[in-house]
Amino acid sequence: MTASQGRTGRRAGDSGTREAILAASRKRFAGHGYDGATIRGIATDAGVDPALVHHFFGSKERLFAAAMRLPVVPGELLAAALAAGPADPGESMGEHLVRTVLRAWDVHEIRDVFTGLMRSASTSPQAMTMLREFVTEAIVSRLSTVARAGGPAEARYRASLVASQVLGLGMTRYVLGLEPLAAADLDTLVASIGPTVDRYLTGDLG
Amino acid sequence: MTASQGRTGRRAGDSGTREAILAASRKRFAGHGYDGATIRGIATDAGVDPALVHHFFGSKERLFAAAMRLPVVPGELLAAALAAGPADPGESMGEHLVRTVLRAWDVHEIRDVFTGLMRSASTSPQAMTMLREFVTEAIVSRLSTVARAGGPAEARYRASLVASQVLGLGMTRYVLGLEPLAAADLDTLVASIGPTVDRYLTGDLG
Repeated sequence: MTASQGRTGRRAGDSGTREAILAASRKRFAGHGYDGATIRGIATDAGVDPALVHHFFGSKERLFAAAMRLPVVPGELLAAALAAGPADPGESMGEHLVRTVLRAWDVHEIRDVFTGLMRSASTSPQAMTMLREFVTEAIVSRLSTVARAGGPAEARYRASLVASQVLGLGMTRYVLGLEPLAAADLDTLVASIGPTVDRYLTGDLG
Repeated sequence: MTASQGRTGRRAGDSGTREAILAASRKRFAGHGYDGATIRGIATDAGVDPALVHHFFGSKERLFAAAMRLPVVPGELLAAALAAGPADPGESMGEHLVRTVLRAWDVHEIRDVFTGLMRSASTSPQAMTMLREFVTEAIVSRLSTVARAGGPAEARYRASLVASQVLGLGMTRYVLGLEPLAAADLDTLVASIGPTVDRYLTGDLG
C-alpha cells in the first residue's frame, strides 16, 4: 500500500498536496484573517507537516499570494522598488515607487486581481479584514522601514499616508476610471505623485 | 373628481409626486448613468412636468443626492469648502478642504453612505459608471475652477489628482480601516495631507 502510494509518482503527489495546502489556506485566511491564520493551522487542515508548507511556499506572505492567485507577491515587488537603486538615474524613491506600482498595475492580470480584491473586500467584512491585515503586514511594515521618523509609531503613520495615496491612485485610475487621471501617461503621474510619496516618507509633515 | 383630488390635500399629493420622481430618478441614473439621465426623461417616467422636478429638487445634482439618499450634496459641501475663507485663520485651501471632508466623513450617516456607494460601485458596473460620472461632474469640475493651470485640461488633471488623494484617504481611513491612519486625529491628517492638495491644485507638478 505504502509502496503503491509512493509509486503513484512524486509529481502527482506534490500537486495534490499543494492543492490541499492552498485550499486549506483560502479557508483559514478567510475565516481567521491574515494575522490569525497560521502555517501550523493550515498544515493541520491540509493533513501535512508544517515543514512541507514552508518547503512549498517559503513564507506566509507567499502562501497568501499563491492562495489568492496573485501574479506577484506585493511586498516583494515593494521591497525591490525600495531596495534597488532607481532604474532611472536621478529618480527619487517616491518617484521610483510610483513608477513600479503603476507598471505592475498596467499589466492586465495584476490589475484584474487588484480590482477583484477590492471588490470582494467591499462586499465581505471577512475579506476586508483579511485585506487590511495583509496590507498592514506586507505593505505598511515594509514601507515604514524606509521612513525617516522619530520612532516606529511615526514611521508606520508615514507608511500609512503613502498607502492612502497609492491606493487612491489605483482606485481612481483603474477601478473608478476617473479622467483625465485614468488616461495620463506614466511619466506625468510619476512626476506629479512621486514627490507626495517622498514627503510622506521623509519630509516635513507640519 | 378633480376637486376631490385637490381636496385630498396638497401635502399628500406633493409627497406622492416627490416619491414618484425619486423612484424614476433611481431607475434612470442606474440605467443611463449620471450624464445620460435627463430631468426631462425622469419627468416623463414619473408622469410629471419637468418644471415640477426643478421646483422640487432645483438641480440634477440635488436630485441625484436625494435619490441616492445622500445626507449632503457633495459638490455643495466642496463649493463651501473652496469658496469661504478658511474657518481657521492661516489655513491653506488644501488644509481647509481636507478638514471639511474629514469632518463630513466623521459623521456616521455620511460615512455609511460613502462606504455604501463604494460597495455598490465595486460590484455593479452600472453603479460604477454612475459614480464616475457624478464624481467627474460634481467634484472634478468644481475643483478644476480653483486649480492654477495653463488651461482647462491641466486644471482637470490637477483636480483628478486631488480626487485620488482624497478618495484614497477615505478608503484607507473609513473603508479599509488601515492603522495608524484610521485612528489619527483630524489636525494631524490636515497638516499631513493638506499640503499635498495645495500642491496638486496650485503647485509645481514637475
